[in-house]
Amino acid sequence: MNIDELAKGIVAGERRALARGITLVESSREDHRAQATALLAALPKDREAMRIGLSGTPGVGKSTFIESLGMMLVGLGLRVAVLAIDPSSSRSGGSILGDKTRMDLLSREKAAFIRPSPSQTHLGGVARRTREAVSLCEAAGFDVVLIETVGVGQSETVVAEMSDLFLLLLAPAGGDELQGVKRGIMEMADIIVVNKADGDLKAAASRTCADYSGALRLMRKRPQDPDGFPKAMMVSALQEDGLSEAWDEVQTLIEWRRANGFWQRTRASQARYWFEQSVKHELLAQLEAPKAKAALKALGDRVAQGVEDPTKAAQDFVMQLDR
Amino acid sequence: MNIDELAKGIVAGERRALARGITLVESSREDHRAQATALLAALPKDREAMRIGLSGTPGVGKSTFIESLGMMLVGLGLRVAVLAIDPSSSRSGGSILGDKTRMDLLSREKAAFIRPSPSQTHLGGVARRTREAVSLCEAAGFDVVLIETVGVGQSETVVAEMSDLFLLLLAPAGGDELQGVKRGIMEMADIIVVNKADGDLKAAASRTCADYSGALRLMRKRPQDPDGFPKAMMVSALQEDGLSEAWDEVQTLIEWRRANGFWQRTRASQARYWFEQSVKHELLAQLEAPKAKAALKALGDRVAQGVEDPTKAAQDFVMQLDR
Repeated sequence: MNIDELAKGIVAGERRALARGITLVESSREDHRAQATALLAALPKDREAMRIGLSGTPGVGKSTFIESLGMMLVGLGLRVAVLAIDPSSSRSGGSILGDKTRMDLLSREKAAFIRPSPSQTHLGGVARRTREAVSLCEAAGFDVVLIETVGVGQSETVVAEMSDLFLLLLAPAGGDELQGVKRGIMEMADIIVVNKADGDLKAAASRTCADYSGALRLMRKRPQDPDGFPKAMMVSALQEDGLSEAWDEVQTLIEWRRANGFWQRTRASQARYWFEQSVKHELLAQLEAPKAKAALKALGDRVAQGVEDPTKAAQDFVMQLDR
Repeated sequence: MNIDELAKGIVAGERRALARGITLVESSREDHRAQATALLAALPKDREAMRIGLSGTPGVGKSTFIESLGMMLVGLGLRVAVLAIDPSSSRSGGSILGDKTRMDLLSREKAAFIRPSPSQTHLGGVARRTREAVSLCEAAGFDVVLIETVGVGQSETVVAEMSDLFLLLLAPAGGDELQGVKRGIMEMADIIVVNKADGDLKAAASRTCADYSGALRLMRKRPQDPDGFPKAMMVSALQEDGLSEAWDEVQTLIEWRRANGFWQRTRASQARYWFEQSVKHELLAQLEAPKAKAALKALGDRVAQGVEDPTKAAQDFVMQLDR
């Protein structure tokens, strides 16, 4: 594979080149990893998209929201890429964006690019590959990169660590309780979007929105927020209602953060974080080489038999690995 | 420090040698780590204690239970060591066993050895050091090693990974609910001990014990359990009531597991686990050396400035580290 050609294709905005580049960064084959690293190094660093994280549990209408918002943004002349982090993909066998028909209109737009979640066992692996896919989308000149995740476990944190801004999508809740949203996830959200504010659910959506507004007001103000943020608002993705208002809030927040230095500061600390994570990953990847794996197994057998002390055996193993 | 002398002292059962050995494995100084590894390698591998994990939230009477059980075991002619894993020690500034007066009688016994929790930020670090301290106690000829932890977060899992048997200590609960005990922790327990079955709380203890017995019966039978296990029982550590019955159950369980091969199988897989953990730890420890730290910082600065790609920089860093 000619990496320079591929890089040129990506920078020129060719969709096939971008798709091939993402396939490359998603591969765990050693030669592919080397090529992926070369590709990332060959790409320009001066193209920046808005990286928007989006989380929501199944049933809140994420696909409809992304489709409606994405179509609106395309209508505004913006190029939109959608990526997914799906911690459950290895179990369910499918991926949250696997079925492109979920976003039928958006997937047919030339200015949009939709990429299913890589199927991977480790969230860490998916995270690194998605972070690299974001870089490729930026180099390909996309204006907006939406990074979607199903709201379970740690995946929101991972998405937040590669986003400029984090949206939490909720459905109207029955009763007045703040259901099922963990405090930690609420604290990550910049904008809480209550979807399905239409038809029979409109009144419930309004109550849910008021409940979350109240809860957000009780939270400690974060330095990276202008007055009034984080905030909760209502939309109906189905009726395309409230989407432009939501986008206005996104713009307001981003502009304020840019003007006050938080945008650049967050990007810098995120880049450092991913560098340090990659260093750890590279170090531990040495254990995955066939020779190292065999040696680890053999020495592990001796430890399991009680012939060798675990600590001493570990030190011997690492010494021999360095040579 | 003469490691061979120290090893001899530990094997001879000298308390000061054991204490010095544990201090050595707890140290994170590089030269101390090398000496600790040499010490562990120099110790005999054929001495085995019963490693008993014990968890319970603050207020359930852990200290009183350990004191009463420990005194009883010493009375039976057994030598007893008590170690602690305290995930909160770095925050609280103290450690759960820091105050020896908590176990006033036991700490004065010649056949007992009580060691406070090492103060450490990382649970991983505390875990490794405690696992090594267990090895030293075994080499010193102790018959029973009690590994105590406060029941918060991940520390029970860590204790279970170095124990032959896991006791969960509970206080009588009001009402009939199974309060605050996560399913994952219940699934780890071999014996649930409801403490404070005395005075006004006796009836509540009886109800709590029955509730947990019922809950345990609903759980899937594990291969490593004989009929009737895991089980719930009542004790009063204060009145020294039910302790010998509890100890009988421990003995029954251990003998069954020994006879059916589970004891040795668990030890073998635990040893392999600690070996693999230590390998990972050793690999990542390379980043803690002053030179590596400085290089990581300098390259991280360039990544944060956007001059270098995180993935490429990480690969370059690890390559240079190997040389």
